[in-house]
Amino acid sequence: MVEAPIDFRILVGAGVPAREFKAGEVIFKQGDAAQELFIVQSGEVEIRLGNRRLETVPQYGIFGEMALIDAAPRSATAVAATDVKVVPIGEKQFLFLISNTPHFALNVMRTMARRLRNANTSL
Amino acid sequence: MVEAPIDFRILVGAGVPAREFKAGEVIFKQGDAAQELFIVQSGEVEIRLGNRRLETVPQYGIFGEMALIDAAPRSATAVAATDVKVVPIGEKQFLFLISNTPHFALNVMRTMARRLRNANTSL
Repeated sequence: MVEAPIDFRILVGAGVPAREFKAGEVIFKQGDAAQELFIVQSGEVEIRLGNRRLETVPQYGIFGEMALIDAAPRSATAVAATDVKVVPIGEKQFLFLISNTPHFALNVMRTMARRLRNANTSL
Repeated sequence: MVEAPIDFRILVGAGVPAREFKAGEVIFKQGDAAQELFIVQSGEVEIRLGNRRLETVPQYGIFGEMALIDAAPRSATAVAATDVKVVPIGEKQFLFLISNTPHFALNVMRTMARRLRNANTSL
């Protein structure tokens, strides 16, 4: 089943401070301590486990949410697949969004559900 | 990393209507249409993909949340590992819980994050 990507563009409008990475740069590494999730403002990000590509996160997709949810180290490595701009969301803002915008919580869950289905398909 | 199970016992107090299954009975099958998630009130439930055991869900754990989140068919099969009582949560109640109890949303995400870490470890 091909699904439309889940779209978090509402959180990355003009004026939101973003970080830039060149194609090939590492955004975070598996095992790193984690304080943020990221929304892709422009470009694409590849999620890797060792040499295996788990996923390509498109514009307006999120990544890095797991470590924020369970306070464990990064479970995978994120690499800029193109030149990218990503918007960080810290823990406090994440908890605020979950508490105040149920739609955000549901979209995070949808993203995770899709990742779980993909992971289970690969098993 | 061994984590304590995420505990949804607050939702399955006395008087909440539960469904009973005998050890070995199928609760739902991969590919089934889905309207509910379940909380284990007593006993244990095994989640299977073909002949592979993905997880054993303990008392007060949840299962079946993915199909509710993304409205897709069941991604795996759930079988009573012991005699069990499970409490169904329908879509409306699920959305209500997410909107009104951010702690519930976060616990669902924690459960999914743990499943994703396990799935990625198995890849």
